[in-house]
Amino acid sequence: MTTTAPSDKSDYVLIKGGVIVTINPADEIIEDGYVLIKADQIISVGKLQDAPPDSAVEEIIDTRNCLIMPGLVNTHTHAAMACFRGLADDLPLKTWLEEYIFPLESRYVNPVFVYQGTLLAGLEMIHSGTTSVCDGYFFEEAAAQAFMNLGLRAVVGKGIVDFPAPDNPDPDLNIENGKKYVGQCPSNSLVTPALFCHSAYTCKPETLQKIKKICQYHSIPFIIHLSETEAETKEIKKRYGTSPIQHLNDLEILDGETIAAHCIWITIDDFPIMQKKRLRVAHCPESTMKLASGVAPVPHFLRLGIPVGLGTDGCASNNNLDMISEMDTAAKVHKLNSKNPAIMDAKTVVRMATIGGAEVLGLQNKVGSLEPGKKADIIILDLKQPHLTPVYNYYSHLVYSASGHDVITVLINGKVIMHNRKVVTVNEKETLAAVEEIGKEIKKEMICQGRKKSGFRA
Amino acid sequence: MTTTAPSDKSDYVLIKGGVIVTINPADEIIEDGYVLIKADQIISVGKLQDAPPDSAVEEIIDTRNCLIMPGLVNTHTHAAMACFRGLADDLPLKTWLEEYIFPLESRYVNPVFVYQGTLLAGLEMIHSGTTSVCDGYFFEEAAAQAFMNLGLRAVVGKGIVDFPAPDNPDPDLNIENGKKYVGQCPSNSLVTPALFCHSAYTCKPETLQKIKKICQYHSIPFIIHLSETEAETKEIKKRYGTSPIQHLNDLEILDGETIAAHCIWITIDDFPIMQKKRLRVAHCPESTMKLASGVAPVPHFLRLGIPVGLGTDGCASNNNLDMISEMDTAAKVHKLNSKNPAIMDAKTVVRMATIGGAEVLGLQNKVGSLEPGKKADIIILDLKQPHLTPVYNYYSHLVYSASGHDVITVLINGKVIMHNRKVVTVNEKETLAAVEEIGKEIKKEMICQGRKKSGFRA
Repeated sequence: MTTTAPSDKSDYVLIKGGVIVTINPADEIIEDGYVLIKADQIISVGKLQDAPPDSAVEEIIDTRNCLIMPGLVNTHTHAAMACFRGLADDLPLKTWLEEYIFPLESRYVNPVFVYQGTLLAGLEMIHSGTTSVCDGYFFEEAAAQAFMNLGLRAVVGKGIVDFPAPDNPDPDLNIENGKKYVGQCPSNSLVTPALFCHSAYTCKPETLQKIKKICQYHSIPFIIHLSETEAETKEIKKRYGTSPIQHLNDLEILDGETIAAHCIWITIDDFPIMQKKRLRVAHCPESTMKLASGVAPVPHFLRLGIPVGLGTDGCASNNNLDMISEMDTAAKVHKLNSKNPAIMDAKTVVRMATIGGAEVLGLQNKVGSLEPGKKADIIILDLKQPHLTPVYNYYSHLVYSASGHDVITVLINGKVIMHNRKVVTVNEKETLAAVEEIGKEIKKEMICQGRKKSGFRA
Repeated sequence: MTTTAPSDKSDYVLIKGGVIVTINPADEIIEDGYVLIKADQIISVGKLQDAPPDSAVEEIIDTRNCLIMPGLVNTHTHAAMACFRGLADDLPLKTWLEEYIFPLESRYVNPVFVYQGTLLAGLEMIHSGTTSVCDGYFFEEAAAQAFMNLGLRAVVGKGIVDFPAPDNPDPDLNIENGKKYVGQCPSNSLVTPALFCHSAYTCKPETLQKIKKICQYHSIPFIIHLSETEAETKEIKKRYGTSPIQHLNDLEILDGETIAAHCIWITIDDFPIMQKKRLRVAHCPESTMKLASGVAPVPHFLRLGIPVGLGTDGCASNNNLDMISEMDTAAKVHKLNSKNPAIMDAKTVVRMATIGGAEVLGLQNKVGSLEPGKKADIIILDLKQPHLTPVYNYYSHLVYSASGHDVITVLINGKVIMHNRKVVTVNEKETLAAVEEIGKEIKKEMICQGRKKSGFRA
């Protein structure tokens, strides 16, 4: 089939040559392929011989020797925490949270911190091929603005805890502020609000229920950290006599619009609840390895048809936002954990980082695959490199050999956001300088308080 | 202290500015530092204010906004297997070895394959900051030649098994061929030979002993895969009634010049033997995760003072040679495995990938740290990037945030081997093309035999 040449070439972009990893339902891979885009949308995907002539399009992107695939979907992060990157590692979770993260958050997190930190994180995400992200933090109006300026597709969750938070000193105002946020958060066709209750141990049942009701009213995602640590399951058992999953189920919070990050400590009785309620899981293997929390039973989730996406978590516990290296870890950690090298094959992991993640964010009709009618969220990787030579299997290369640095060009919603590794939407130099300044202030305080570790910057 | 200006500036190179991560015994980190090199050797390391004047040196490398550190030491790989990268993943070990790797090796591995595959692997290693490597494979004369052409520092181990091998159809000739190899292998001040008995289950006791004797006679390393899988320990127990470590100890093979890769299935009685004999361990966490072999008790090795270096293993089981991402995995997998987020901190891992690896290869007096008198094996990373901003802790960034792509310049033995990510010693384009050709042949056969998996290249 030859694609009919468009009559008016404006807004048409032709991605021409290279191998197209479509992630469509048939998992088609097209060598010597093309993708035709009009404005924000994919019009057709096929063999190069069937592409429209160059003269029929406004712009051509030459992708010979490249791999073209849907942009990656990061289902769980705290973008602004990029400002804390590498500040406190190799510590027990309690020390890390209570002696470093919480005190620093209460002192430093403000709208400027969140805006600049989110810009920085967004630059890193774009550089490593992420085009959609689910974020959760404080002052998320500032994060939403940053995502809009970056041109990223984002679900932006306002963080809620039942103790004084940087953006809400009085937890009694949580419900009111949650409502306000949904109404006032900057949004557009790419950036939409959500609410993010931190966890079942930091939010009381009433808060969880009322926040979920707001989400239901507005049809927006409810985000939560769930069954992350053994300590959490013990605490919830002590307080409510049940598992975290069952506790949330009892509160009628679990449904297909709830995104649960981690889901590591899952009991045998939790699985059918997750399955029945179509709970969506954000799987963050690097962060939970680093914090020694455990390994989520993802292969079992997938067998049960529970939607699972991949996430990096925040930079304070990972410490980067590279979804391609996250794929590598995801594939390997489940092999190790199950003593089965055949589990979580490369294709499964690539699907989890694309269409799987899209499903978790409720965006599966818009993104996650290269198919006509979908939004043009597309990344292009340079295959002509020693570590990607020779090529036998494209999924294998994406998971086991590639890294985020191999992404050279990124389109989001049909717009070129990064070209030849240069992000065009935001001034990178200014953002690096702004976050460096924030880092210097934090560092000064840490040095004063004698909280520096070996290797700490002078 | 101001460095005295050299009287004759020829052969002097000044690395000027940036942060020097020395890995010296005091673990000094010098911000705004310099490294002065003469010919192949480091002359001095210090604060920029004490550096010699520009006029006193032949060449200046401007390293403002960079991190300068010793080149990484990859203690275990099979370089030429880069030609098999991504050919067979997500398979049980037995299927992988017996249905893919062994048949393909017997059919395709020849001196050209090894030379071109080693060149490709070497390019990848240099691009990701490796400056010293311990290799083990067949036709290693060709590998040695490739390493010499690349300008890499390498210990080049000829592979030995007691069944027909690609470079030795008659295993009865193993001892004779081993001797010949040591005498005839191309070598220079950077590239030296070693012998590599594949394992205690593929080499009979007599072979192990005689090959070790050759190594002792020539004072060269004896390399072996040891206690890698549960199946290996069972097989050795069945054959010899003991653990693999104890079996080799009984054969008097363990000493400070034996390099044992993996060491995962270690019994309580093995530890004191390893400690007493100063057995050197090559730890390859990514490969053993991918093959689901288990996790080596590295934190315990380190507590006992057993020398441990990091390795990538070959590209058929990793599938890249990026030592920086290997550091990340090493730090995280032990946290997960021991349920202790404080174990294997970033500094420990960086030491393991540098001076630890140098000790494993017996090169600790030459490389592994930036100190006066050591050989100038130096890598330079660009810190001015979103994923490396802000900086609180340099070790943390190296392990948890960086990747091999952040290395921009590489010096080996005082010579610039890569500058601004361009390798100057070998023609990259020609090497990629040569390995692509080898890949095409192998692919054809695999398609004929119906051995292709989902995602396989057409």
